[in-house]
Amino acid sequence: MADSNKKSVLIVGGGAVGAIAAVNLEAGGLATVTLVLRSNYDVVKEHGYTISSCDHGNLKGWRPSVVRNSIPDLVGEGIEQPFDYVMLCTKNMPDILPTAVDLISPALPTGSNASKTTLILLQNGLNIEKPFLRPHPNVCILSGISMIGSAETRPGTIIQDEGDKLLIGAFPTSNINPAVPERRAEEFVHMYSAGGKTKCTYSPNVLHDRWKKLVFNACLNPICAITGLDDGRLRLADGALDGLVRPAMREIVAAAKAVCGMDLDPGVVEETIHVDPLESWLKPSMQQDLEKGNFLEYENLLGEPLRAGRNAGVSMPTLEVLYYLAKAIQWRIKEKRGLVEVPGKK
Amino acid sequence: MADSNKKSVLIVGGGAVGAIAAVNLEAGGLATVTLVLRSNYDVVKEHGYTISSCDHGNLKGWRPSVVRNSIPDLVGEGIEQPFDYVMLCTKNMPDILPTAVDLISPALPTGSNASKTTLILLQNGLNIEKPFLRPHPNVCILSGISMIGSAETRPGTIIQDEGDKLLIGAFPTSNINPAVPERRAEEFVHMYSAGGKTKCTYSPNVLHDRWKKLVFNACLNPICAITGLDDGRLRLADGALDGLVRPAMREIVAAAKAVCGMDLDPGVVEETIHVDPLESWLKPSMQQDLEKGNFLEYENLLGEPLRAGRNAGVSMPTLEVLYYLAKAIQWRIKEKRGLVEVPGKK
Repeated sequence: MADSNKKSVLIVGGGAVGAIAAVNLEAGGLATVTLVLRSNYDVVKEHGYTISSCDHGNLKGWRPSVVRNSIPDLVGEGIEQPFDYVMLCTKNMPDILPTAVDLISPALPTGSNASKTTLILLQNGLNIEKPFLRPHPNVCILSGISMIGSAETRPGTIIQDEGDKLLIGAFPTSNINPAVPERRAEEFVHMYSAGGKTKCTYSPNVLHDRWKKLVFNACLNPICAITGLDDGRLRLADGALDGLVRPAMREIVAAAKAVCGMDLDPGVVEETIHVDPLESWLKPSMQQDLEKGNFLEYENLLGEPLRAGRNAGVSMPTLEVLYYLAKAIQWRIKEKRGLVEVPGKK
Repeated sequence: MADSNKKSVLIVGGGAVGAIAAVNLEAGGLATVTLVLRSNYDVVKEHGYTISSCDHGNLKGWRPSVVRNSIPDLVGEGIEQPFDYVMLCTKNMPDILPTAVDLISPALPTGSNASKTTLILLQNGLNIEKPFLRPHPNVCILSGISMIGSAETRPGTIIQDEGDKLLIGAFPTSNINPAVPERRAEEFVHMYSAGGKTKCTYSPNVLHDRWKKLVFNACLNPICAITGLDDGRLRLADGALDGLVRPAMREIVAAAKAVCGMDLDPGVVEETIHVDPLESWLKPSMQQDLEKGNFLEYENLLGEPLRAGRNAGVSMPTLEVLYYLAKAIQWRIKEKRGLVEVPGKK
């Protein structure tokens, strides 16, 4: 935070999305990045990242300005100048503690300083901003929709094979004068675009982009996870498209309309089904997480659109069953990881 | 078939259910059993069964009168005297070839001999008799509902820890004078009860028993398989009973009423949920099959009640999603077993 011409950006989560965001922001020259890591901290601290990126080329031993293994605690560490931007690039699992709010709160200023920091939620799903509104009413929150293709193949090693496309806009539920988050969004887009290697765009209707992405994320994500079929095989399996995928997607389209009057393009169902080439046999993130024994990010991807749609009077029978199946599977993962206990066998 | 005082019984499938049926029939002294085995043929042929039975005690090296590894071919083998009873004790998977009809047909007499053999389908699910009606219109078909607790822990080793309770009745769709299957059912009950160690009962309304069993089999069976939670854990998992199990079971109750005017007892839902002690952590058969990589018996357990209910105008959204998920999972098992092929990765 020494260079006053640069904005200070705290990125929480240095996996496949956060690491490339850090590379891009530092490359643009308008930001100083502090990156908070968890599982890959030791590797990155010692050896830096090994990155193979279609946008940024091959980088070996790369590190942002600051690497940390804990969330900065503004009060506890006596940090007087709050970060200009705090970007959350972790998964979002409100049913697993600590929640995103618990995690980030120490890095968010309060009182008269609250408006100095802009929080950017670069995560999927609906209503991810809501838990922040009550504890941080004066922090400006932006919505980021990332369409990057990147993966952390092992700790600290990132392969990015599809360009970093990012949509940034204001969350419409923010209780701050809308002009403020809009201006901050534009500032962020300018800063993120400075390196000239990404497509970062200001989106005046980022909620539309979020619902559009849910056509994939609320449907193919859990269906592939639950059936164990990747999104290519699902197109070949007897009856899966007509019995599961299309009904689920149509429920999301109907919910988007009923919840916020949003008309998704009529072709969005078929387009989303065929978004990846069949023969790339891609496994959506929830399927990958299940195979790895990780927790599932199903509450914001599936639960929130379901609850919002039902509250608006939409019948969503397919998503409802998928939701409760995902919830039961999450319980199984919780038991395996020692978060719930069951009595012994009799 | 030498002893003319004894009935000849062909049992197809010598697993946990068929083996105990064979033991019981031979113990009663009124039947001569020919048992057709597949995966455990070599073991049983050479060493006989090792059986630990709450009804019949410990048996070592036990064999029925005849053990075979192929279905008797009446015509091909020149067998002049058809079996009095042919009992089918295998799983029933009409979507996997050979089907039950393909398998059994060589052992069923045709023409003027057709009425000499009674076919007993000791399998779960709805409409299992239907595929036999057209190719074997004059074979009398009985419905058997088994409530035994037994398992084949390894090939040829059977542990039976819950008594053999069997309900026998005529399939109501049979196109033969109803008095004939009723008389045959009573004859079979007499023969099966002769050893005095089982509760084999004639049921005048066996379709009721079949629908009642579907409250478990169409619901807990696929839900446990898909979530990977046994039927005890499913009762503990967040929201699984109210979100999945109870809605599915209520759909079966409604279908039974609409399809054939059958009033299942109002307590059947809660009674079925708690049928096993929670802490026995029992895995229903479909879950066991999935874990073993076996095909799933979902078409008659889930698909047929679903189709019958929908045709009768019942809304069955929960079972519909469970059905298509089971079908997609079956496709995955088919691929793994080489029954379907997919193009290579690009």
